[in-house]
Amino acid sequence: MSVLVSGSIALDNVKTQKASQENLLGGSASYAAIAASFFSPSSIVGVVGHDFPEEHLNLLKSRDINLEGIEFSQGETFRWSGEYMEDMNDRETLEVALNVLESWKPKVADSQKGAKINLLANAHPLNQHDVIDQVPEGSAFTIADTMDLWIQISRDELERLLKRLDLLVLNDSEAKLMMDTSNIVAAGKALREMGPKYVIIKKGEHGAMLFSEDNFFTCPAFPLNEVFDPTGAGDTFIGGFAGYLASLGQDDYSFDDLTSAIARGTILASFTCESFSTHSLQKLTQEDFDSRLEAFRGYCTFA
Amino acid sequence: MSVLVSGSIALDNVKTQKASQENLLGGSASYAAIAASFFSPSSIVGVVGHDFPEEHLNLLKSRDINLEGIEFSQGETFRWSGEYMEDMNDRETLEVALNVLESWKPKVADSQKGAKINLLANAHPLNQHDVIDQVPEGSAFTIADTMDLWIQISRDELERLLKRLDLLVLNDSEAKLMMDTSNIVAAGKALREMGPKYVIIKKGEHGAMLFSEDNFFTCPAFPLNEVFDPTGAGDTFIGGFAGYLASLGQDDYSFDDLTSAIARGTILASFTCESFSTHSLQKLTQEDFDSRLEAFRGYCTFA
Repeated sequence: MSVLVSGSIALDNVKTQKASQENLLGGSASYAAIAASFFSPSSIVGVVGHDFPEEHLNLLKSRDINLEGIEFSQGETFRWSGEYMEDMNDRETLEVALNVLESWKPKVADSQKGAKINLLANAHPLNQHDVIDQVPEGSAFTIADTMDLWIQISRDELERLLKRLDLLVLNDSEAKLMMDTSNIVAAGKALREMGPKYVIIKKGEHGAMLFSEDNFFTCPAFPLNEVFDPTGAGDTFIGGFAGYLASLGQDDYSFDDLTSAIARGTILASFTCESFSTHSLQKLTQEDFDSRLEAFRGYCTFA
Repeated sequence: MSVLVSGSIALDNVKTQKASQENLLGGSASYAAIAASFFSPSSIVGVVGHDFPEEHLNLLKSRDINLEGIEFSQGETFRWSGEYMEDMNDRETLEVALNVLESWKPKVADSQKGAKINLLANAHPLNQHDVIDQVPEGSAFTIADTMDLWIQISRDELERLLKRLDLLVLNDSEAKLMMDTSNIVAAGKALREMGPKYVIIKKGEHGAMLFSEDNFFTCPAFPLNEVFDPTGAGDTFIGGFAGYLASLGQDDYSFDDLTSAIARGTILASFTCESFSTHSLQKLTQEDFDSRLEAFRGYCTFA
């Protein structure tokens, strides 16, 4: 069973207090699709420009990701530049150039339409609607990520999107912003009442929470002594989540399936934090994953 | 087996956006001793003034807490006034009057010296040293809480204290401040290397982490839809932790014992957040506690 991932494909310039690198593979869809491909076949819908390096395309190909939904445009690839401060939770965006993303209309290829999970990684809500419109109705479990910008400038489209989702995922600060509350639990419950069957609130170094109508799950982050570059950790998390669900080969998912998927996404995200871009993720072995998941299970268990 | 709790006994004036109340029972030792008494006999070492209400003393007595270490002084009781903003994580201290606490020298009564857990709730490090000096060496598992003020003005005494502890507990912001790092995991490990066998870092609504030489445990907070007044939640947490450990009737504790104790402390702390002062805690039934612990176990479990 496969995962369809749509969203941004970017070239990132990232600066931390220890190192910096340019033209890194970035974007919500890149991270999510590579993470999903750890568990399941995945495919990607996005747009890149003439400057998109062959090397990054080859990486996606090497993960057996179906690239038929990638539009190759004449303009320049979406670019993001950011700097992390001494406190890695504190990030400053130095520059954003939408470039080819600005006029992008997602096109899902026929070969991508059988996916069991439709993961709308962070993108403009109208792009997310477009993807849902192109996928056979009811054929996929639909997940969408969003961000503060869309909550601020595209609230109506976002609210309309919520009614089309099985699961909404967003950061704690975004959940609080959207529901105008300082209580994360209250925000999660209120968001769920706006449409999605499930809501996941990501809390960065503090983990994630899952809300359903009658259940709740809270998962810590995997403890890292040093965070090298957290860019894309949230996208990796939800990509891994989606990929794990698809690997179950089911048409529907129990609450326990979702909690298992959250744990897997958490582990993948921890690897993403340990290098620039998807560098750790792309060389991750099953053995290293299993061993970290096993350790994590111990870290979370009490008698 | 019993818990010896030393620290502050206060009269609090608390204002939230919804309600306010004056002359509430407060102070690190009050919360911790009442929490500990849920699981084990406990005793308290502290000081109160002539204005300390009979009602509060009666409450402590009703929990069978040994009060022989309480000094009744001619001055006024330590007072704290604070206000919580719309975001309950945001608290402003309006007034602090040390009063009788200023010249206090803790005196452990003979009847209190057999305790198996010596819980030094938040107080000046010199007061904490004084209590350790009065307890037969090696007779108790020694736990200390601290705060940013002591890290700033009594660093030397605090560092000396660390070498006398089995377990240090403090907030995430305090741990980062003390170890000059923005990474909680790195802070926890570094603090442990300064002396205590174990370190617990409290993260408020995000739970707590436990560090030992070769193990790690991370526990979320119990999810609360509404936090009424979080004053004393951290003191309740560590008091419940200590009381649960004492209830095991052992001379030493395994890592698993500590994780079980953290879960129990977490549950007690969630009740403290639901009312002013110790009001929820003092009427808590075993049944309500068990049912919340059981729910919590489910909230934290993944397959």
